[in-house]
Amino acid sequence: MSDEVFHPAVEDLPLSKVLAALADPARLAMVRAVAATDGVSCTRLGQDAGLELSKSTMSHHQRILRESGITRTRVQGSHRILRLRREELDARFPGLLDAVLAAPAEPVPVRAARRERVNAH
Amino acid sequence: MSDEVFHPAVEDLPLSKVLAALADPARLAMVRAVAATDGVSCTRLGQDAGLELSKSTMSHHQRILRESGITRTRVQGSHRILRLRREELDARFPGLLDAVLAAPAEPVPVRAARRERVNAH
Repeated sequence: MSDEVFHPAVEDLPLSKVLAALADPARLAMVRAVAATDGVSCTRLGQDAGLELSKSTMSHHQRILRESGITRTRVQGSHRILRLRREELDARFPGLLDAVLAAPAEPVPVRAARRERVNAH
Repeated sequence: MSDEVFHPAVEDLPLSKVLAALADPARLAMVRAVAATDGVSCTRLGQDAGLELSKSTMSHHQRILRESGITRTRVQGSHRILRLRREELDARFPGLLDAVLAAPAEPVPVRAARRERVNAH
C-alpha cells in the first residue's frame, strides 16, 4: 500500500506554489535534510533537520511539501517515508533546487515554530 | 533625492524571505519584466508585466519586492524606478534568479489579484 496519498503531477506545478512551500525556514531545513538521504521517515527527518517541532507541525510541513510537488511520501506500515522529487523538479525548474540547497542555511525561529504549531491544530 | 526608501543589506537576506516575495504569480511577472530592463517605472512595469492591478496593489507588490531585497527603488521626481538587484542576489544566492527567470511563466489569477487588492488597503 504505497503512494496512497496525493501527489501533484510535476508538469502541473506552478513555480509560485513551489516557492511558497520553500519559503519557510523549517521546511527549508526539512528539504535540506531530505536531500541528504535516499528516503527518510518523517520522525527521523525532524531529528536530522534539527527541528524541535510537534508531530502535528511536522505533519503539516510534510503535507505542504508533498502537495507542492517537492517531496514524495511513501506509506510503509506505520511510517511515512519522504523523498525529494529531485529529477522531476530539476526537469521542470532547472537549477532551482541546486540554488536553494546551496544557499546559506538560516535558523528556524522558535516563535514561528510555535505559531505554526497553533495554526496546524 | 534618490534611494530614500529602505533597502535591506543583501548579506542579511534570509532565503525564506526572498522565496516568500517570489511566491506570487503577480510578483513573479513583475520580476520577469524588471529583469528585462535596466530600470523601469512602477507604472510602466504593470503594463510590461501585463498586469491589470490597481495602483495600490502594484505599490504593495513593489514594496514586498524591495523589502525582500529583490528590487531597488530609486525615487525620481514623482516616479519610482525599479531595478533588479541582480548582482547582489547572484552573489548571495547563486543560480536562484536564473532558475526563477528560466521557469515557465504562469498566469496571474484574477481572483488572487482581487484578494491582494483588498489586503493592500
